[in-house]
Amino acid sequence: MILDRLKALRQLMDQHQLDAYIINGTDPHLSEYAPERWKTRSFISGFTGSAGVVVITKDKGGLWTDSRYFLQAENELKDTGIELFKQRVEGTPSITEWLKEVLLEGSCVGLDGTCFSMGEVEQMEADFSAKSITLSIEQDLLETIWVDRPVFPNSQAELVPDEVAGETVENKISQLLATANADYHLVTALDEIAWLLNIRGKDVAFNPVFMSYLLVGENRSTLFVNPEKISNDITNHLQQANVKCLPYNAVFTELKEVVANQSIYIDPAKTNAAVANAIPENCKATMGASKVALLKAQKNATEISGFHKAMEQDGVALSRFLFWLDKNVDSGSISEYDVRLKLKEFREQQPDFKQESFPPIVGYADHGAIVHFSVTEETANKIEPRGMLLFDSGGQYTCGTTDTTRTVAVGKVTDQMKQDFTLVLKGMIGLTNVVFPENTKGFHVDIMARQWLWKEGLNYGHGTGHGVGFYLNVHEGPMSIRQEFNNTPLMEGMVISNEPALYRENEYGIRTENVIYCVEKMQTEYGRFLGFETFTLCPIDKRCIDKELMSADEVTWLNNYHQQVFNKLEKHFEGEELQWLQEATSSL
Amino acid sequence: MILDRLKALRQLMDQHQLDAYIINGTDPHLSEYAPERWKTRSFISGFTGSAGVVVITKDKGGLWTDSRYFLQAENELKDTGIELFKQRVEGTPSITEWLKEVLLEGSCVGLDGTCFSMGEVEQMEADFSAKSITLSIEQDLLETIWVDRPVFPNSQAELVPDEVAGETVENKISQLLATANADYHLVTALDEIAWLLNIRGKDVAFNPVFMSYLLVGENRSTLFVNPEKISNDITNHLQQANVKCLPYNAVFTELKEVVANQSIYIDPAKTNAAVANAIPENCKATMGASKVALLKAQKNATEISGFHKAMEQDGVALSRFLFWLDKNVDSGSISEYDVRLKLKEFREQQPDFKQESFPPIVGYADHGAIVHFSVTEETANKIEPRGMLLFDSGGQYTCGTTDTTRTVAVGKVTDQMKQDFTLVLKGMIGLTNVVFPENTKGFHVDIMARQWLWKEGLNYGHGTGHGVGFYLNVHEGPMSIRQEFNNTPLMEGMVISNEPALYRENEYGIRTENVIYCVEKMQTEYGRFLGFETFTLCPIDKRCIDKELMSADEVTWLNNYHQQVFNKLEKHFEGEELQWLQEATSSL
Repeated sequence: MILDRLKALRQLMDQHQLDAYIINGTDPHLSEYAPERWKTRSFISGFTGSAGVVVITKDKGGLWTDSRYFLQAENELKDTGIELFKQRVEGTPSITEWLKEVLLEGSCVGLDGTCFSMGEVEQMEADFSAKSITLSIEQDLLETIWVDRPVFPNSQAELVPDEVAGETVENKISQLLATANADYHLVTALDEIAWLLNIRGKDVAFNPVFMSYLLVGENRSTLFVNPEKISNDITNHLQQANVKCLPYNAVFTELKEVVANQSIYIDPAKTNAAVANAIPENCKATMGASKVALLKAQKNATEISGFHKAMEQDGVALSRFLFWLDKNVDSGSISEYDVRLKLKEFREQQPDFKQESFPPIVGYADHGAIVHFSVTEETANKIEPRGMLLFDSGGQYTCGTTDTTRTVAVGKVTDQMKQDFTLVLKGMIGLTNVVFPENTKGFHVDIMARQWLWKEGLNYGHGTGHGVGFYLNVHEGPMSIRQEFNNTPLMEGMVISNEPALYRENEYGIRTENVIYCVEKMQTEYGRFLGFETFTLCPIDKRCIDKELMSADEVTWLNNYHQQVFNKLEKHFEGEELQWLQEATSSL
Repeated sequence: MILDRLKALRQLMDQHQLDAYIINGTDPHLSEYAPERWKTRSFISGFTGSAGVVVITKDKGGLWTDSRYFLQAENELKDTGIELFKQRVEGTPSITEWLKEVLLEGSCVGLDGTCFSMGEVEQMEADFSAKSITLSIEQDLLETIWVDRPVFPNSQAELVPDEVAGETVENKISQLLATANADYHLVTALDEIAWLLNIRGKDVAFNPVFMSYLLVGENRSTLFVNPEKISNDITNHLQQANVKCLPYNAVFTELKEVVANQSIYIDPAKTNAAVANAIPENCKATMGASKVALLKAQKNATEISGFHKAMEQDGVALSRFLFWLDKNVDSGSISEYDVRLKLKEFREQQPDFKQESFPPIVGYADHGAIVHFSVTEETANKIEPRGMLLFDSGGQYTCGTTDTTRTVAVGKVTDQMKQDFTLVLKGMIGLTNVVFPENTKGFHVDIMARQWLWKEGLNYGHGTGHGVGFYLNVHEGPMSIRQEFNNTPLMEGMVISNEPALYRENEYGIRTENVIYCVEKMQTEYGRFLGFETFTLCPIDKRCIDKELMSADEVTWLNNYHQQVFNKLEKHFEGEELQWLQEATSSL
């Protein structure tokens, strides 16, 4: 099947006089999760991982992906003729390096410019110029060869009431324009549009967003969205903030006209090249990181209390699940996939739950050591009554988004498991309790989560914390907590995951993740100091802890945390479940 | 006097048709400590601080300096007509901003291009271009008006034997050329030349360097140095490494000829604009951070053992001093300046001591809170028998450079002093004990020194660690341990200070500084892990510690450290002094 598709693509490339074609599998908003219509990477290559770029030439093919997917890609690419290029492995050429090697001087490379950022396209053009290779960004060749391509998503958008959002659209827009210092700010990331307009959608799985572009200007903002998405209520709501609606594709023509001789602020990493090209030359464009992202990341008091409500519901669901697991795991008949379904089932019982916030990761034993193991019916193992189970899951509630990882004993755990679990836990507690002056960045504090692992020569190969949206994408920026440089400071109101981990290949994986939020801790003559409070309400499995490795302060933190979990959740439980909760949250 | 000098300068500016003249008080090698001849900033303004830039226009004058010197500058600039501009204070214009405001379009600004880096000059030119202000970098106007200007320093250079340096010049040069990937590497920083050639000098106070430029090429390196500095021994030594000597000023003519049609590697931050201008246009210049700095920073095993030897001698001197202080401080007659002299006296008794490595900082009570308090006979206070004394001093030994800060009780210390002292000590220990994977940067680990202060809303406004040279500059790069971004990783063999601190304005200051060095701790399946060992051998004053605030591990570290100090030093002591050392290093 893949071979047929490749053949069709190559015929079309020939017709368009393209010597290569690049497919990255994202959508016109460069979303982490794309609507089905833009799952172009898996359509053309069969590779189903969440990240990767496919390049097809007349007689060659390549997939560039990262270490999470090396094994999976090798399997899925078998017999396609597409070669695996391992990103961030020494000696692997970049896509442009490879193309410069395999293509002749003067070749032409095609791609769908709506699915690549203007920054990427400019970089590619610069890279190719040395070999006089040109880039053609006009062709969406898959449109022709993908016969049953899913249609453009057209779900209904829904309102987030002002009292839930904590801020009117008008106020958000004026804050935005005050910081952008331009006549217009073009907003292209779907979660930014949703947050700014207090609207959510269902166009993408897991992320409650809707396909649109937004051009923000004083008293004259335009939302480019297909009309069937927009109810009268939403039209009224938008009118109050002087936002008019035009069809999704009108963005190209409208941009050409409206911003002529004006100034506009755009984010080159988030704006696709096709839209960027629609901005006329006489418009003064300022490039920079989207100003919406930083506003959105600093949650207001209403959003913070919404999160508390969501976390309580999520805590009830997770505790119910843990009780169920404890009762049933001895049977040996539960599979990782059963766990995934059960997690969803318990969440669905919660009043404000809408959908899962990402595909759950459920890894028993060695599956726990596969960082992004996405469990399906086919890949699921049975859970035997020994060792540990890692599960990472979350929900979209109308009052907040959750993301929790716990690693729990499903039987006897070894001393090494306990030591590893405790080192990870010490890191999670250490980061939770750090206090830091204003303007501290995530890379300054990341070590608080890693130091105990490092002392034993252990580490984990991913970041410690990502931003979490308010009833929005479970991954958001602009801040992060990781080793990599990121100049956005940790600021009051930011909601961030705290997820140190340890993976013993082929043995087991441990990750303990709470969602924390940044608060002011004190002001002294030495400045303003910030720190974190914890949102997540879910017991941490004491059976996996080696108390000897913990300091008195860490034990106190854990006991206080469990006390808080119990106090917030107990009213939802009774009988055997309440007893279970009491035991799970009792002092260490 | 200053007014006369300013008048003479302005007359000369007039003759040269300059509307402003900039004086930064550094030398042609952009040294931290300049030879007397280049102390132009204090000559023209009377300001004696170690950092600052003076700008003189026809009718105005300004000094830009940082917060360390605000008070001092205000005093010293009185009646000069030179205005203080406070760097890094909101609202302070930069020098070019200010000049663009006070000068007319088309003005000309002069400076001595040998004392400004090419990077700085390029930046100024770019800044000025908007107002058509030109820059003339040819004039050293002070040469004319400074009648008794100190002569060019002409001390004799001295050899560092290969067995002390641990590496031949030939090997160092070939390592350098291997990394620079150019026909030539121009070396302009005096400590880099001294290290690369295994030679030291006495041209600058505190730093054992000699005035020179070095053009390194395969089999054809040239040292530009005045011949009176160079003995026959050194000439022979240099010949062995294919380094020929030419006079200091020949660098300008020689560069023009030798590197024509060749490639050269230069560091734009370390190369002065005049020398950079001498590189002909047909030479392919690659700009980047000097490759010498990184090689020099990773000390070889011989240098490491030299450091141990130097630290032992320094520890003897410091312990003698501390014993003397304890015996005499009750009298109330000792001044901070006496302490400075005494520290030097005890160091001079050590066999390999050459000179102090920087001007000692000796601060009793509120003077301790002035971060860079340089004690002189005039500024010295008497030390009363209560509270704490901070002293920061070091020596140049032929086998290594030392830099130690201790804060000691000179009488009763308050509970708050003890708490502050202990928080600082916890940070010093925390950084000493951190273990981290290869490629970790200083900004990743800086928090280990600050976290305990931060938890109490306290902080210190300077970096935690700077590189320390091997019988060379006490401050060296390229790595550092501080909050600011610095992409050079911490690497095996790097020697770094570890000096957390706390300053209570108008009350007291606390700083505890050891010199540590980076070593491999282990290799595991998670990678290679590094950490630190301690060089410095000097008791930490237990009378200032609140043991309740320390963890068991921290107490163990301190006890082990003191045991090590005692073991290494005891053979140098007897009688009452030995008893003192025993007590000072006994278990907490």
